Amino acid sequence: MAGALNEFDLIARYLRPLALDPGALGLKDDAAVLSVPPGQELVMTADAIVAGVHFLPDDPPDLVARKLLRVNLSDLAAKGARPAGYLMTIAWPHGLTEAMVAQFVAGLAQDQAGFGIALLGGDTVMTPGPWTLSVTAFGHVAAGGMRTRTGAKPGDEVWITGTIGDGAFGLLAAQGSLPQASAEDQAYLANRYHLPQPRLEFGVRLGALASAGLDVSDGLIADLGHLLNASGTGARIDIGRVPLSPALWGLIAGDPVLLRQAVTGGDDYELCFTAPPAASQDIRALAAESGLKVTVIGQVTREQGLCVTGLDGTPMTFEAGGYRHFGMDDSL
Amino acid sequence: MAGALNEFDLIARYLRPLALDPGALGLKDDAAVLSVPPGQELVMTADAIVAGVHFLPDDPPDLVARKLLRVNLSDLAAKGARPAGYLMTIAWPHGLTEAMVAQFVAGLAQDQAGFGIALLGGDTVMTPGPWTLSVTAFGHVAAGGMRTRTGAKPGDEVWITGTIGDGAFGLLAAQGSLPQASAEDQAYLANRYHLPQPRLEFGVRLGALASAGLDVSDGLIADLGHLLNASGTGARIDIGRVPLSPALWGLIAGDPVLLRQAVTGGDDYELCFTAPPAASQDIRALAAESGLKVTVIGQVTREQGLCVTGLDGTPMTFEAGGYRHFGMDDSL
Repeated sequence: MAGALNEFDLIARYLRPLALDPGALGLKDDAAVLSVPPGQELVMTADAIVAGVHFLPDDPPDLVARKLLRVNLSDLAAKGARPAGYLMTIAWPHGLTEAMVAQFVAGLAQDQAGFGIALLGGDTVMTPGPWTLSVTAFGHVAAGGMRTRTGAKPGDEVWITGTIGDGAFGLLAAQGSLPQASAEDQAYLANRYHLPQPRLEFGVRLGALASAGLDVSDGLIADLGHLLNASGTGARIDIGRVPLSPALWGLIAGDPVLLRQAVTGGDDYELCFTAPPAASQDIRALAAESGLKVTVIGQVTREQGLCVTGLDGTPMTFEAGGYRHFGMDDSL
Repeated sequence: MAGALNEFDLIARYLRPLALDPGALGLKDDAAVLSVPPGQELVMTADAIVAGVHFLPDDPPDLVARKLLRVNLSDLAAKGARPAGYLMTIAWPHGLTEAMVAQFVAGLAQDQAGFGIALLGGDTVMTPGPWTLSVTAFGHVAAGGMRTRTGAKPGDEVWITGTIGDGAFGLLAAQGSLPQASAEDQAYLANRYHLPQPRLEFGVRLGALASAGLDVSDGLIADLGHLLNASGTGARIDIGRVPLSPALWGLIAGDPVLLRQAVTGGDDYELCFTAPPAASQDIRALAAESGLKVTVIGQVTREQGLCVTGLDGTPMTFEAGGYRHFGMDDSL
């Protein structure tokens, strides 16, 4: 028990410096306190990850920390919310080393600084099972202004930020299962898997230009399907318009069947949103200011269902589901 | 994978009915949204529990759910915050049965109704390890009005709600390790272990009558020590004034050494707070209105450190620590 206490003293020493917000009370109280500016509401999202399920057991702890934070920030970006802070609960596995803690915390510190947020509180426990992490992140939006999944209208355009498929192939690259790619492309894709880029500036400034939105975590086809279902609409998209990175183009040119994996694989953390055509110019201007690529891949239709046109002009069909995290935020 | 998906469909069907707050968006979006009334702030607290560490693997799932919720509500009560909702992340173990899910959700539904709160969102994942649960609970307080650990002043009285030690001995009773107690007393104590009573009404109405406060989760001696350290004060308390239930008195009368376990064992979820003597009458009146027993056990002193007078009038000494959860909210 003394050993466990020392472990914890160690953790507290590492975590306390992350609690930069005065509302965290230096992690010395039972709770944190957060003000919400007048006219604003609080957007809140939670994600849990388990070693061996959601990340590789030998992933560097700093990358695990940064991805966990970024995945939650991506949810806030999708909802148009400005990040305000986060709580974290950590179930540490036995065999925890001080080096693991130090790396984990260094990753959090780096991304806290980069994204301008801080730890507000949480809980740490020991587990006989795998390392398990849970983050609840908070952001502010104008009251009534949270971007939901339900507002897509027939005639709206379907937009994607960045490129799709890098996360799924990045996992393969990180596992050494993508030998056909160059070392440079493998490194690019693995980095996209480990360090998704939450589209915060763009997501917040996009505001009500978009009619509906979410972030792509379970695969473009599945997530766009959720948005369309929630909105009571359908869409037609062209698979050839789905934006791909040069690294992924190289792979897919050699084996077009991989395109199907790119749009179903998940772990993209790009924003998918719908907007009326009249907003198109403003959206492109905003993306240019944010230094972000945006692409229209199709149109919302009155007819329900998602119609995907393949590279050869014929319809593609997809199995329902595919790999999904068991997120309660999935539209089931 | 199809089996896992069906499991999850099942879970979603069970969890969605808990999401009664409109801000939960029926768990169909990436995030929840919460309004904070003008002039109020949000208090937030998080706890994680692991099967086999924080609860017994064969504890009925409805009791596990209710205790997890209550432990978080107790933190809000300690801070004077009116509950507003909660997010939950669940890592389900393999071998999950529909009966477990149904019982777990029934427990949440029962306590949601009893305490007037609802599920706002969260995440569910599968784990190869033990069942792991994390709750982030939210409450409202008047801006600047959160009761902290830091306000205790020399001359303040030290108060306790309810009775101390039932949780620690209730764990023994639940494990069948308390054969010297009557069946009735064992049942009483086990119930106190499984279903702590968050002192919400009293905790909210107590407001600024108290100068500092927390809830007793790690043992009275340890937690009062945290409060006193945070306040830069000490206290003298009489062990004979610590309020005990009749069930526990029965045990301790037969073996006074057990009193030491009662004040260090933890799992009490009673409020410990300090208040100036001038507030005493108002506090007693408030407690009477809430149907709650409150007891003064000593006084805050300018001299740091906690002096405990034993039943024989001589000072008692305590080892630092004892069993503690690894809460980040511990003052280390």
